[in-house]
Amino acid sequence: MSILAVGSVAFDTIASPSGRVENVLGGALTYFALAASYFTEVRMVAVVGDDFTREHENVLTRRGVDTRGIEHTKGKTFRWGGQYLDNLNEATTEFTELNVFEQFQPKIPAAYQDSSFLFLANIHPSLQKTVRLNLDGVRLTGGDTMNYWINHTPKELMETLKLVNILLINDTETKMIANDRSLPRAARKVLALGPQALVVKHGEYGATIFFRQGAFGIGTHPFRAPALPIEEVKDPTGAGDSFAGGFMGYLASQDELNREVLKRALFYGGVMGSFAVERFGTERLQQLSREEIDARFQVFRELTHLG
Amino acid sequence: MSILAVGSVAFDTIASPSGRVENVLGGALTYFALAASYFTEVRMVAVVGDDFTREHENVLTRRGVDTRGIEHTKGKTFRWGGQYLDNLNEATTEFTELNVFEQFQPKIPAAYQDSSFLFLANIHPSLQKTVRLNLDGVRLTGGDTMNYWINHTPKELMETLKLVNILLINDTETKMIANDRSLPRAARKVLALGPQALVVKHGEYGATIFFRQGAFGIGTHPFRAPALPIEEVKDPTGAGDSFAGGFMGYLASQDELNREVLKRALFYGGVMGSFAVERFGTERLQQLSREEIDARFQVFRELTHLG
Repeated sequence: MSILAVGSVAFDTIASPSGRVENVLGGALTYFALAASYFTEVRMVAVVGDDFTREHENVLTRRGVDTRGIEHTKGKTFRWGGQYLDNLNEATTEFTELNVFEQFQPKIPAAYQDSSFLFLANIHPSLQKTVRLNLDGVRLTGGDTMNYWINHTPKELMETLKLVNILLINDTETKMIANDRSLPRAARKVLALGPQALVVKHGEYGATIFFRQGAFGIGTHPFRAPALPIEEVKDPTGAGDSFAGGFMGYLASQDELNREVLKRALFYGGVMGSFAVERFGTERLQQLSREEIDARFQVFRELTHLG
Repeated sequence: MSILAVGSVAFDTIASPSGRVENVLGGALTYFALAASYFTEVRMVAVVGDDFTREHENVLTRRGVDTRGIEHTKGKTFRWGGQYLDNLNEATTEFTELNVFEQFQPKIPAAYQDSSFLFLANIHPSLQKTVRLNLDGVRLTGGDTMNYWINHTPKELMETLKLVNILLINDTETKMIANDRSLPRAARKVLALGPQALVVKHGEYGATIFFRQGAFGIGTHPFRAPALPIEEVKDPTGAGDSFAGGFMGYLASQDELNREVLKRALFYGGVMGSFAVERFGTERLQQLSREEIDARFQVFRELTHLG
C-alpha cells in the first residue's frame, strides 16, 4: 500500500574521515523515500527551490517515487553542512540555511488522498498535525521529531503525539520527552502520550521497539534488532531516516500489522540504515535490489539468532 | 569443569542516583566468581587484607566458590570509590587505594593445578602471563584488560594476548589496542594478536563476539547479543565482570566448545550482567537460582528472535 511522507529535501555538504562531498541531494524525506521505495509506493510532500533540477528529481523517480507533491518555489533549497571528523556517531553542524524550507506549508495533492500509510518526518509538530488531520483513511501514521521541538514546542508536540501510531526517535529524545533517565520507564511514559509503539534508535547498536499494552497483539515485552558492525562507515547522514524508510516501507507492504510484522520491520529498518552509511549521501540507497536487501536481512538474522 | 580465576577483591564505596553504599564487597574477581558459580566450580586466586572477614568469605563459599587461593596478608584490602551520578554508563572514580593489591603476586594452590578453564581478570599483563604459564592442562583461557595497561604496558600486553583464547573487553579498549576507529576492523586486528575470539562489551547495548577465521567452527560472521532494557539500573559496578562470569561459567559447563555454545555463552553473559545492576554491589548475584537465570535467558531470546 502507498505511503505518503512529508519532510525535508536538502542539499548537504558533508565531511567525514572517509572524505567530503558538497551539495549532494539529501534531507530526511529523501533518505526515507529512497529506502521505503524498495518495499512500496512512496509519495513525497516537500518544498524545493529553483536549484532543484530535473536530474535531482530523477534520482527519486527512477526509484518509482511519486514526486508530484514536491512544491517548486523561487529561491534556494534547504542546505545543511556537517562533519563527523571527531565522532562518527554525531554530526557537528557547520551551517544550516533553511531557505525555502523556512516557510514550508505542506500541500497534499488530491491524488495522494487515498494514501493508507503516513510518515511525518522531522518538521514542526503543528505542520505534522495539520497533515494528519487533512488525510482521511490513513491506516497508520509514523512520526519522527527532534530535541529542538521537544524543548521549544512541547505543547504542539504533545498534540501531534496523540495522532501518531508509531513514533521513531533516539535514546536521548525518548528520555528528554519523558524527563526520565531509565529507557524502559521513559518508553512507557512516551507510549502513554499517544503512540501504540515506540521505536528507539540506538545508532550503531540498532533499535528497540516498545509496545503499549494490547497494541498490535499480546504482551509487553520489547524487541531489539541489532545494527550491523560496518567495516567502514563513510557517512552516517540519513541513517535514522533510512531506518524509518525501511521500517515503514516494510509495514506498508504487509497485509496484517501484528507484532511479528513489526519485529521484521525493525530488522528491515536496520538493514536500510546499514546500507545508507556505506557511501556518501544517498548513493548506496539509489542502487540496491530487493535481493541484496533480503540477503542482508539474513545476515542480520544470523548475527542475532541462536541455532 | 572448574575455572580458576585470578583478579581483584575489593571493598567499594558507590554512589548512584538510586543511593549509596560504603565498603561493600566487590572487585572484578568477586563479581566474576559469583556469576560463574551458577554454572560451574570456581576457584579464586586473589589477595585481601585483615579487614576481610569470615563473613565476607562466606558470601563466596555459600555459592560453592573455592576460596583457598585467597591470600590473607597484613594491611587493608583494595578499596575503590566511584559514582554514577552524572552518567550511569561510566563511573567517575573518587578514590583508589590499592593497599595489599599493589604487591599482589598470584600464588596458585597445588589443588588448583588441574583447572581446565582459566580467567585472567584485569591485572598487570605480566602477572596474567605468569599465571597462565604456571598452569599446564588449561583447555581455554579467557582474559580482560583495561586502558591503563594498553597505554602503559603495551609490550607486556601483547605477550599476554598470545596466550589468551578469548579476550573480553569493551568498544573503546578494542579500538585502542588496534588503533582503529572501525569496530570490525579493530576486532580483526586484535584477533591477529593471538585470541581465537574477541568479545566486545557494549554496556547497555549488549556484546558482540568476533571469531578468528577457522576458530571454533566455520565462517567469519560475528554474533551479537543484546542487553536487557533494565527498569532501574541501581549500580552498574561489576556488570562487565558479571558478564564475563556468566560467559566463562557457561563455557566451562559444556562438553564441546563450538560457535553455537559461544553464542549461548554470550547470552548468559548478558543475563548475569543484567542481574548484577539491579541491586547495589553483589547483592543480586548472591541470591539467584539457575531457574531465574534460565527464565531470563528466555526473555533475552524473545527480545531478539523473530518468530
